[in-house]
Amino acid sequence: MRYDIAIIGTGPAGLEAAITSKVRNKNIILIGSKDLSRKMQVVEHPILNYLGLPSVTGKEMAAAFTRQLEELGIEITEEKITMVYAMGDFFGLQTSANDIIEADAVILATGVTAGKPYAGEEQFLGRGVSYCATCDAPLYRGKVVACIGGGASEEEEAEFLGEVCEKVYYFPQYKGDVSFRGENIEVIREKPVEIKGGMKAETLVTDQNSYDVNCTFILRESQFPGQLVPGLAVEGNAVKVDLQMCTNLPGMFAAGDIAGQPYQYIKSAGQGNVAALSAVSYIDRKKREAGN
Amino acid sequence: MRYDIAIIGTGPAGLEAAITSKVRNKNIILIGSKDLSRKMQVVEHPILNYLGLPSVTGKEMAAAFTRQLEELGIEITEEKITMVYAMGDFFGLQTSANDIIEADAVILATGVTAGKPYAGEEQFLGRGVSYCATCDAPLYRGKVVACIGGGASEEEEAEFLGEVCEKVYYFPQYKGDVSFRGENIEVIREKPVEIKGGMKAETLVTDQNSYDVNCTFILRESQFPGQLVPGLAVEGNAVKVDLQMCTNLPGMFAAGDIAGQPYQYIKSAGQGNVAALSAVSYIDRKKREAGN
Repeated sequence: MRYDIAIIGTGPAGLEAAITSKVRNKNIILIGSKDLSRKMQVVEHPILNYLGLPSVTGKEMAAAFTRQLEELGIEITEEKITMVYAMGDFFGLQTSANDIIEADAVILATGVTAGKPYAGEEQFLGRGVSYCATCDAPLYRGKVVACIGGGASEEEEAEFLGEVCEKVYYFPQYKGDVSFRGENIEVIREKPVEIKGGMKAETLVTDQNSYDVNCTFILRESQFPGQLVPGLAVEGNAVKVDLQMCTNLPGMFAAGDIAGQPYQYIKSAGQGNVAALSAVSYIDRKKREAGN
Repeated sequence: MRYDIAIIGTGPAGLEAAITSKVRNKNIILIGSKDLSRKMQVVEHPILNYLGLPSVTGKEMAAAFTRQLEELGIEITEEKITMVYAMGDFFGLQTSANDIIEADAVILATGVTAGKPYAGEEQFLGRGVSYCATCDAPLYRGKVVACIGGGASEEEEAEFLGEVCEKVYYFPQYKGDVSFRGENIEVIREKPVEIKGGMKAETLVTDQNSYDVNCTFILRESQFPGQLVPGLAVEGNAVKVDLQMCTNLPGMFAAGDIAGQPYQYIKSAGQGNVAALSAVSYIDRKKREAGN
């Protein structure tokens, strides 16, 4: 089955995009976390400037949004998208379970990814740097790999690497206890700095040591937009958009923090609305043209 | 007194701009109607796609917004702004009572004005075409004038014209009964088409007749943005803005329907938020520069 619109992200931008697309009778898939945005859940001080929700905590806001989704019968599909391919007439979204979700239009609303790529990361991508353990672990069966984990939710992927590879150095870039069933997974509290090599990546350099590895798996909670979508025009950490939330790729739209500053809930929601209406008119135009 | 930010318009864009500016401790004036947006008040079907307010009528939405303004201590100043002048370092807002409100930054959120100017309107502006009875009526004492009323709220201005001028032809462009105390005010149900003249406007042509008048007062509920602000870059009925809601005039920002399609509540609110933050950073930058 091909969806009309795939919406990636469950912060205010993704939720509003889903609501507006649904109200416009589109067949949508909303991909993200049922907990909505992690950023929203941890806000404890009252949010004062979301018009319509006076003085709410992040949790209260998330609860209000969840109720609204339920009223409209919108479900959240809990998948991680590792790559989005523009296939010409439609988009293919690769999940971390290596499935492909197809959609005519895509709205990117994955939030902003702090920081920047490691030195060498982009140079060696596909040649000893990978963003997806499920996809690429089999290539490194019996080998030594590094795994940089951006959040606790990546530990499952690292566990899988441990099952397939000879040895895994795991570099958690977050706080809290980390432990694995696999005894061949070594947890190292260092800060990765650079990926080095010749034709292929061979070494992960940290702020304290260097490690000879066949591959470095970089598992961020959300990827840099240019890495998620090959060919997407970006400016720093933000996707380039116009006022209608169009990106440089026909049929692909972006909204919320991923579309640049300011990082504000109501701004994100507003852009999600615009992105959805742009996606709706893109699809309707395509259908009309196909009918001729 | 000079305000930090003057916000013109009390639809979702203006309200969100006011809330965000207030939360950022700016000294603001919010100018518009205490009934908020007329468009909002008349929506009777449920609005389904405002994230945070599931399935509300326009009245319920307006009530929620009003409560939030009250909680934050934001008041609405009921004035009609007839002209905004960029004075270099600040803005002067002319009211229909001929007062001037001063502000360092301005956010335009007056909504969209349907239609387009009458033929000859822009050509004769200031030479037999006026947008403000209070300002210009004295120039036509004892003369014959036409008055095109865009809504019932303009009747008071027409009544004033009747007190000053010899004769007033009043052309209501809305439905409902219209009556005046002044017996020299004639209500005519015709559609104005063109303003003609030589050096000055001399004739108002309608779809049925033509009237020799010394001046045609055109009183729309909201003006075309280019007429409200001399020098403002527009595209059709919309103000030209970038993603940060900046117009071509430094210190002036626009949000909501006046900034173009789609005409949606949450899009307007989102843009109001962005416009406010852009205004805040404009003011802060100006203050820093003045401090050096």
